[in-house]
Amino acid sequence: MSTARLIDGKGFAEGLRGRIADKVRAFASETGRVPGLAVILVGDDPASRVYVANKGKQTVEVGMASFEHRLPADTAQNDLIALVQRLNADPAVDGILCQLPLPKHLDELAVIAAIDPDKDVDGLHVVSAGRLASGLPGLVSCTPLGCMMLIRDVLGDDLSGKSAVVIGRSILVGKPVAQLLLAANCTVTIAHSRTRDLPSVVRGADIVVAAVGRPEMVKADWIKPGATVIDVGINRVPAPEKGEGKTRLVGDVAFAECSDVAGAITPVPGGVGPMTIACLLYNTLIAAHRREGLAEPEGL
Amino acid sequence: MSTARLIDGKGFAEGLRGRIADKVRAFASETGRVPGLAVILVGDDPASRVYVANKGKQTVEVGMASFEHRLPADTAQNDLIALVQRLNADPAVDGILCQLPLPKHLDELAVIAAIDPDKDVDGLHVVSAGRLASGLPGLVSCTPLGCMMLIRDVLGDDLSGKSAVVIGRSILVGKPVAQLLLAANCTVTIAHSRTRDLPSVVRGADIVVAAVGRPEMVKADWIKPGATVIDVGINRVPAPEKGEGKTRLVGDVAFAECSDVAGAITPVPGGVGPMTIACLLYNTLIAAHRREGLAEPEGL
Repeated sequence: MSTARLIDGKGFAEGLRGRIADKVRAFASETGRVPGLAVILVGDDPASRVYVANKGKQTVEVGMASFEHRLPADTAQNDLIALVQRLNADPAVDGILCQLPLPKHLDELAVIAAIDPDKDVDGLHVVSAGRLASGLPGLVSCTPLGCMMLIRDVLGDDLSGKSAVVIGRSILVGKPVAQLLLAANCTVTIAHSRTRDLPSVVRGADIVVAAVGRPEMVKADWIKPGATVIDVGINRVPAPEKGEGKTRLVGDVAFAECSDVAGAITPVPGGVGPMTIACLLYNTLIAAHRREGLAEPEGL
Repeated sequence: MSTARLIDGKGFAEGLRGRIADKVRAFASETGRVPGLAVILVGDDPASRVYVANKGKQTVEVGMASFEHRLPADTAQNDLIALVQRLNADPAVDGILCQLPLPKHLDELAVIAAIDPDKDVDGLHVVSAGRLASGLPGLVSCTPLGCMMLIRDVLGDDLSGKSAVVIGRSILVGKPVAQLLLAANCTVTIAHSRTRDLPSVVRGADIVVAAVGRPEMVKADWIKPGATVIDVGINRVPAPEKGEGKTRLVGDVAFAECSDVAGAITPVPGGVGPMTIACLLYNTLIAAHRREGLAEPEGL
């Protein structure tokens, strides 16, 4: 019998978008313009096209301006960088996101490095990572930000002294989540594939963030009773029970069994995933306020 | 009875400076110039003057060029920034260090931000922090680098799977040490003043790095038998046994009692402290090689 609170990322993201929409209206009445998010899509990868379409749709729904730049798959590096520079200089653009992955002939690192860090709403710029590590105001990548919002929704704003274990040390998720948990005064352990006796490390945690990309790796007997479990993994696995060749999505956490032990747990899908675009809009809103010299909106 | 190996930072630093001197000669014969380190000292704080003098002396001893820039205490921000920019543009300068603290009317963050990250041998630039967090080649601040060299001297190059606890989360030491230990495949826990039951957290560690600035806080019964203990703290405490008003230096670790439990331990003074300037020279050497497009020297 599942006893854990189900952390409803979809519902939280919906509420967040509503609060963002309110702040967008206040911003517009103060500045006479709406925040703007520019998204660059190079090529026609089907998954990327869906992501970009969703981002554009949600951007407009909260009242922001969405600028979509679609470039052919054979776009030259120089031309892409030149577009980024035009967007850097464009006063109507508060956030710039370049949809990854880029076609192989393009240098992703160089493209991201060309983005003005103050418009880096994806939080991927080396300066964004440096600001986060140095405790300076910056932009934090969307998935880690979403994890923290869900954790605070469960445990409240004061996480001081809680023991947190982050499984996975990717630049995109594990490391920035660890930085954010540390900034929130948690005692933070970063575990990974080389960690010895991972189950016992995880068992010490009040907060577990799993971001490794291994289907259902985290088992019930790894979880401290009552812990808050955030599952960032999205893994596609065979689902023969649904028919031949069918698949389903699972996280890095064995959801069903861990639900019996955890105090609160995110489902996959419907947990962290839906937070990502909402956090992108959140970052665009924050960037817009900073660029206008306004105090950052509170109560989000 | 002390059983721990005493980690001789002074001796290690001496050896490192010798190896750096060899590499400087090789660099000079390849490029026709020696690496150059520029140090800026604003005002006449006595402690800062001593540090700068020591840096200059050791720089010259390893065969590098030392450029000392002494500015009056009332130097204007603009003039200091202009000097940094000249040093950024100077091809003979591979490393730039601005001795801190600066007089109060100057903005330290802005001065550090003005340094070319490729010449940021103190590792304080936000881009240096970002490169470290992102796993990109950069320059790492000297004390964390010194800690890692001593740890590797004790435990060898392969630290994979070892459990490391860093006590303290400063931007200057705790956080970068944690990043370096993580990059070395340790399972890393960052503990701090808000950590609950710190003794038991520390007791799990194969490697303990203490960097909190609290005299002799870490006790023998916090230490796992055989652990490697690196003490970054330098605290001045009263030493009435030496006479009225006398003081002595102690670390963050209760050295005498922890020596009975640890496998290896740094003394204070003579442990991490002497590594700092040697690592500054190391960084200058690395920066010089990168600037010349040469492969980084190995075997240091």
